[in-house]
Parts: sequence; structure tokens; C-alpha cells
Amino acid sequence: MSDLAPPLERAIHELSRLPTIGRKTAQRLTFHLLKRPKEDVKALADALIELRERIHFCRECFNLADEDLCPICASPKRERATLCVVEEPTNLLALERSGSYRGLYHVLGGSLSPLKDIGPDQLHVRELMARVQRGDYTEVIMATNPNVEGEATAVYLSRLLKPLGPNITRLAQGLPAGGDLEYTDELTLRRAFEGRRGF
Amino acid sequence: MSDLAPPLERAIHELSRLPTIGRKTAQRLTFHLLKRPKEDVKALADALIELRERIHFCRECFNLADEDLCPICASPKRERATLCVVEEPTNLLALERSGSYRGLYHVLGGSLSPLKDIGPDQLHVRELMARVQRGDYTEVIMATNPNVEGEATAVYLSRLLKPLGPNITRLAQGLPAGGDLEYTDELTLRRAFEGRRGF
Repeated sequence: MSDLAPPLERAIHELSRLPTIGRKTAQRLTFHLLKRPKEDVKALADALIELRERIHFCRECFNLADEDLCPICASPKRERATLCVVEEPTNLLALERSGSYRGLYHVLGGSLSPLKDIGPDQLHVRELMARVQRGDYTEVIMATNPNVEGEATAVYLSRLLKPLGPNITRLAQGLPAGGDLEYTDELTLRRAFEGRRGF
Repeated sequence: MSDLAPPLERAIHELSRLPTIGRKTAQRLTFHLLKRPKEDVKALADALIELRERIHFCRECFNLADEDLCPICASPKRERATLCVVEEPTNLLALERSGSYRGLYHVLGGSLSPLKDIGPDQLHVRELMARVQRGDYTEVIMATNPNVEGEATAVYLSRLLKPLGPNITRLAQGLPAGGDLEYTDELTLRRAFEGRRGF
């Protein structure tokens, strides 16, 4: 590929550094961009630079924000008596997409993992404690991931937070919507049984 | 998704406008970029802007170039007695990847297609004629795509060029019918080069 004009080679190289984008996809994207109006390519480039320069963590909940507070913490429309604890901003986004929650969030920045040397001090646990102590929350919902680390984190936090007053709940575990019993793993089935409810 | 910080929303939106990149992939790429050093994100953005601003067509062969001549036309290492005619710069790149050709190219900018109203005047046919008349080519290789339009274009051009002197050849059949050069594997391309035959 030595006989490629340098700006072409550079664009393909930079794009192929992105996750899930191989050299061939990068090349296809590059040729696509060459056919787009200059303003479109500039809009993309500007959006990336602005993203990296203006996005930081919300002072209150550690969600991603471009102001001091993230759009959720700053919104007058959110219910302020419930707090939902998640591991990462991407988890928060997934919950928002579901449209099933109108309260506030707290983003931990990960989950407890002795193997990766991640303890409470590496997460935003102290800030969570302070928020719950300071705030007037009637319910704190544990929405950590349904895996070993997420479960352990939820159990750990629930013990810390219970003495502070609020009702501590966790997201239900069970069969995924649209799934098939035949292809559901044993652990999910076991949890679906344990969590069964009356009609 | 209204509760997303604007710079985040903008980056996801711009990335999801790229072909094969849906909203979820765009979101994953955005969160990846947030974790990268600022210089990396700037390098990507700069590469895209430079790509669009500096790349144009080679004066001689209509390949993509950042100088007056493309790297291939400008290279002292290329054999100047053979000319390989392709439809698009992406096809040229595929042939270069196969490493089976060391001559010069001529990029048509497409193929003859009565259905799409593309005739010889919409392609760089006149320039090809002029090059062959002017130059000292012993062989002109037709490497248009192995589909109906590509074949028709090759036949049309071979009739035009034959009276001008050079030996006209075409890539060996062995390329999968209905395929596209850009997505053909290197070995197949190499065999097609080796097996080229006279018209």
C-alpha cells in the first residue's frame, strides 16, 4: 500500500484504529467520505473534536456532561426521590432508551473486581454515600450488570446504603422478552424460577 | 435520547451517518473515543479534513492524488509500457494489494451503462485515447469489473484502442461472474493477471 497518496493512507489508518473497523471497512468509509460534500466531512471532524474537548463527568452523578451538571441532573422533569445506580454511562443510556425510568442516576464508573484490583475507592462509592445521606431519596435501585462483579457490587452497596434510610431495590432478573426457553441458559432459568410471581 | 449532552448526541449522529454504521455502533465508537487521549481524536479528525481537502484526481490517470500526479504515475519504479484500465480508484487499490502488476493505470471513473445514461463522454475515454496515441504502450490491459457493464466497456474500448497499435488484453476469466474487483481476494486477482489473454 506504499503507492497510496499520504492523506488517503492516513485517513484509512486512523479509521482502522477504531474498534470493529478493519482496514477494508476503513477504506470503504474513506472512499465514501471523498464523495461527500466538504461541509459533511467537516461536521464529522468537528463533532469528534468537540466531543473530546467538551465532554466530562457530571459533578453530581458522574454521567457524561458538557455543562457542570448532566442533562438528567439539570432537568426539572425528573423525579428526585429515586436514584438508580449503574456501572457505566452506556448502561444509563440503555435504561433511558427503554423509557421506563424518570428518576435520577448515579454512575459508579465500573464494578467491584478484586481480580482487576478495583475496590470501592476506584469507584464513585463515597460520592454515592454522600448523595444518599444528603438527599431525600425514598428508593435506591441497583441496576448493576447481571454478572458476578455487578451482583457483588449491588450486594456491597445495599449493605452500605440500607442504614441510611432509603428502600433498596434491584432490577428483576428472569427471561428476556422475546426469548425462547429452549435457548435460555440455566442461570437465567433458575433466576426466573426464583423470581416467579403470582398472576 | 433527548437527555444526552449535545456534543455526545452530535458525535453519535455524525458517526451514524457513515455507511454500515448504525446508531449502536456509533454510540460504541463515541464512548471509545471519549477514553482515547485528545491527540488521538484530533489525529482522526485532522486526517478526515485533510483527506477531503487535499485529495483530487491525478492529471494523468485519474487515480486519487494529493499532488499533480498520483504516487503511481510519479513513481520511477513503475513499468511505463503497460497500461491497466480500471473503473474506479478502489479497483486500482485492489489490484495493487495483489502485488501482481507493476505498470501504469487509467481510471475510467465508471463503466458504460445505457440504463444509467453513462456513455463514453461521462468517462475518461477521450483521455485514455490520447494517452495511448501519445504514449509508447506495448500492452493495454482491460481490468473492468467482471459484470455486464464492465465487459461491455472492455469490448468497446478494445475496439477503439486496437487500431492505435498496442496489444489489448483482458484479465483472465476466473474472476467470479457478477462480482466486484474491490472485494476479490488477492490470489484470484493474481491468477487473473497471469492468465490474461488477447482479445
